[in-house]
Amino acid sequence: MSDPSAPDAQASRRSFLKLGTMAAVALPAAVSSLAACGPPAPAAAKASTPPKPAVPPKTARELADEMDAHHEAGVKAFPAPTSGKGCQVLAPTIVGGVKVFELTCRELQWETKPGIKVHAWAYNDQVPGPQIRVRQGDRVRVVLHNQLAESTSIHFHGLEVPNDQDGVPFITQPPVKPGESYTYEFTVPNSGSHMYHSHHNAAIQVGNGLLGAFIVEPRNRSNEPKADVDYVMILNDGAHGFTLNGKEFPATEPIKAKLGQTVRIRFMNEGMLIHPMHLHGMHMTVIAKDGWPQPAPWKCDTLNVAPGERWDVLVKATNPGTWAFHCHILPHAESKRGMFGMVTVLVVT
Amino acid sequence: MSDPSAPDAQASRRSFLKLGTMAAVALPAAVSSLAACGPPAPAAAKASTPPKPAVPPKTARELADEMDAHHEAGVKAFPAPTSGKGCQVLAPTIVGGVKVFELTCRELQWETKPGIKVHAWAYNDQVPGPQIRVRQGDRVRVVLHNQLAESTSIHFHGLEVPNDQDGVPFITQPPVKPGESYTYEFTVPNSGSHMYHSHHNAAIQVGNGLLGAFIVEPRNRSNEPKADVDYVMILNDGAHGFTLNGKEFPATEPIKAKLGQTVRIRFMNEGMLIHPMHLHGMHMTVIAKDGWPQPAPWKCDTLNVAPGERWDVLVKATNPGTWAFHCHILPHAESKRGMFGMVTVLVVT
Amino acid sequence: MSDPSAPDAQASRRSFLKLGTMAAVALPAAVSSLAACGPPAPAAAKASTPPKPAVPPKTARELADEMDAHHEAGVKAFPAPTSGKGCQVLAPTIVGGVKVFELTCRELQWETKPGIKVHAWAYNDQVPGPQIRVRQGDRVRVVLHNQLAESTSIHFHGLEVPNDQDGVPFITQPPVKPGESYTYEFTVPNSGSHMYHSHHNAAIQVGNGLLGAFIVEPRNRSNEPKADVDYVMILNDGAHGFTLNGKEFPATEPIKAKLGQTVRIRFMNEGMLIHPMHLHGMHMTVIAKDGWPQPAPWKCDTLNVAPGERWDVLVKATNPGTWAFHCHILPHAESKRGMFGMVTVLVVT
Repeated sequence: MSDPSAPDAQASRRSFLKLGTMAAVALPAAVSSLAACGPPAPAAAKASTPPKPAVPPKTARELADEMDAHHEAGVKAFPAPTSGKGCQVLAPTIVGGVKVFELTCRELQWETKPGIKVHAWAYNDQVPGPQIRVRQGDRVRVVLHNQLAESTSIHFHGLEVPNDQDGVPFITQPPVKPGESYTYEFTVPNSGSHMYHSHHNAAIQVGNGLLGAFIVEPRNRSNEPKADVDYVMILNDGAHGFTLNGKEFPATEPIKAKLGQTVRIRFMNEGMLIHPMHLHGMHMTVIAKDGWPQPAPWKCDTLNVAPGERWDVLVKATNPGTWAFHCHILPHAESKRGMFGMVTVLVVT
Repeated sequence: MSDPSAPDAQASRRSFLKLGTMAAVALPAAVSSLAACGPPAPAAAKASTPPKPAVPPKTARELADEMDAHHEAGVKAFPAPTSGKGCQVLAPTIVGGVKVFELTCRELQWETKPGIKVHAWAYNDQVPGPQIRVRQGDRVRVVLHNQLAESTSIHFHGLEVPNDQDGVPFITQPPVKPGESYTYEFTVPNSGSHMYHSHHNAAIQVGNGLLGAFIVEPRNRSNEPKADVDYVMILNDGAHGFTLNGKEFPATEPIKAKLGQTVRIRFMNEGMLIHPMHLHGMHMTVIAKDGWPQPAPWKCDTLNVAPGERWDVLVKATNPGTWAFHCHILPHAESKRGMFGMVTVLVVT
Repeated sequence: MSDPSAPDAQASRRSFLKLGTMAAVALPAAVSSLAACGPPAPAAAKASTPPKPAVPPKTARELADEMDAHHEAGVKAFPAPTSGKGCQVLAPTIVGGVKVFELTCRELQWETKPGIKVHAWAYNDQVPGPQIRVRQGDRVRVVLHNQLAESTSIHFHGLEVPNDQDGVPFITQPPVKPGESYTYEFTVPNSGSHMYHSHHNAAIQVGNGLLGAFIVEPRNRSNEPKADVDYVMILNDGAHGFTLNGKEFPATEPIKAKLGQTVRIRFMNEGMLIHPMHLHGMHMTVIAKDGWPQPAPWKCDTLNVAPGERWDVLVKATNPGTWAFHCHILPHAESKRGMFGMVTVLVVT
């Protein structure tokens, strides 16, 4: 578990809090007794155990303070440092005018929150895999190196590539065997927020982390909305827990904007469940579905994102403060010990 | 269980049926043998039990009649009286031009259908909590009195309030401890169908009943659709069962309209699951999402409502009769013993 | 299990593959060792068992080949022949200007994929039941013959029929007892993609197969989109597995179009779960919800279909090839042994 009193976390917290307008909150003294709040030691069963001295039962206030201390510790730890960061933009190498991306998949341990490591299969040691950003009409080459113990493939989810680049073993290509490489190459046909992921033994392979964002800028940028911040948020559930970009709260990443700026969020769901994402304090204007512009953009504060879907929204940062931003299936976001899972914040300064 | 032959239920049923155009249905004689349809008594295990006299096995028709009698009893019991009614409009007191709402949360037993009481945490002893109705631009004060054994808070879900009124412990305020009170105050910023609920230990607290509707009329009413009936329907699941406004069928409330009237329904989901609500006999025109007008209203008869979402629809009451209105995840609405859970009717007379 | 080397399956595969543009794929020799890939025999526990001769452990490549052989066998078996075909268009008899449809419901065994038979309750021995296609304004009579061991009824889901034709026992009609018949008759009021299904003990009866498509052409066809292929796809889950039109991959049916043609797909969900249907290689334009035209058609490649919903989409067949088309909740579509469940393809030649 993260220790909020550790120097690193303290420094991180302080610098984070400076970003927001969060009111100063008096901390109950109980925070310092956090270590006392773990599960009780098992009662000794031996007959020779001397009788315990009488301890007065805890008051409701004491119990509430203990629970609240857990909640506070989670918030204070945010954004908690962990090893590994997914969804980083991958710079291509340019070979004869072709943008070349190398993706190596292999197994590793992935830290989803401080001290919690899960078994993962990753592209380039990232969960989600590195973010690919290209432009409509670009010639793109993706070279897959399979260092897993089983075969794999890549499907470019949402891209209308030629059939033999579609990545479905035995329908459009042979599987890529362990130790082998495979090259995809195509001219990027359509713009928008798309994904790439394994399409072989996919319930397991995608569930374990073989997924990433594939963002395509339109050839004609004149109809693109102006956005000061462009943020990809990949939702996931399953073996790695309830994650945003591969991390659980308090290790998720805050989204930051200045007052008056426009934030574009590209939601992508690579899990098995819906996640209705709820933003506090401001609304979202939905501008695209699966990379295709919505003909009549519409507003909401809770956007239901189903597996395989992508939704692009704009948020006008009009309301200063630190705003909770989470899945509204509450058991995906909070337990008796405080917020966890699919929770982050939008900070407007 | 509700006894449909009890005088109160009979009177209730008769008055209800007068509202609809339900055809007279011949009741099978088996209804009177309903009491015989309960679970069988456990077989006695003692050796001294005398052998039972031979009983001829039941025919398919007899078994069908028995099952149908359960189904009929549920329908006839509707709307079954229960103690407690949630979602009642709460009149504010006006203090210096401010609309003041007092909300006291405490534990109680809540009757979801006749004879079935669940443990609940409630605002003002109602599940859902009392309905707050104000107008955009109103100054509103909400005073929370916490009589629970743990801390709590209120989040105004969908309202773009100032950050320090957002109700998220340790991000925007300290938790409200047992026995303490806390005051929220803000000028209502945006209109539409919104909600309020706990944002502390929320998976438990909201699941147990700490939730309610917060409806805001727009400052400028000229674009509001004309509606003769304005009905809030809060969907829930979890510890209290599959409920509409805190009640399970047959204790749910019928919605009533006269032929030609327009009914506005404000769906709100405070549960953990989607609920695709299906109306028989007429369609719904979807006019708003999360309180924001849809730019291009659209029609449907089955509206998928995800946790945290609010959808406003209009129904033109053009088709006379008593129309089933239920979640179309059928195990949320019917069992072998008849309809239950998320079922009500729209009665057009 | 389907044997892909059986003559029938081979012939079927060959004729199917000719439709597509699937690249020739070299088959690993391991396919012939498919029978060796079953679960291992339990280890003998007896002390007298002689020691096994040393066998070198399998290499990663050998294990991958074995897994891939399962995946390949599923694809090669597609479309696998099974007994029974649901959703066949039912020709009415015309009696005095009335289109008369006879529906007999009874129990049977239904083959969902080669060798897998499930217990089903079916209309006219089909799962889904026969497809009814009529025109707005038609006078329609549906005669239900109940050969089940329990009562039933038919609800015309989405049709705005008079109340006494709505099919809800004890609200609009008595249940139809075992061995009895019941006649529905109405003038078809509204057009679009609708459904019919049991509304009595419906979680069980619909789950077991008592459901079908009820398609209504509009009286005025001038606003209908031109479609070269008109395909109904009924999604289901539960007791019969994850099915498309009553079949699991590889026994599902490919959708076929010529390059440049327009395919209209009418999605209908009769299950208990959402199914976000993802089409590879091309996008879908959503034109109607629950039979009602969308005022502003919108594009997507992954369409979330909730229970009770119907969505009509158009696909312009612009991209030649054999394209996977599946639910993107991956555990509904693929296991370690290959694709199964809610998977089919769109073949563009």
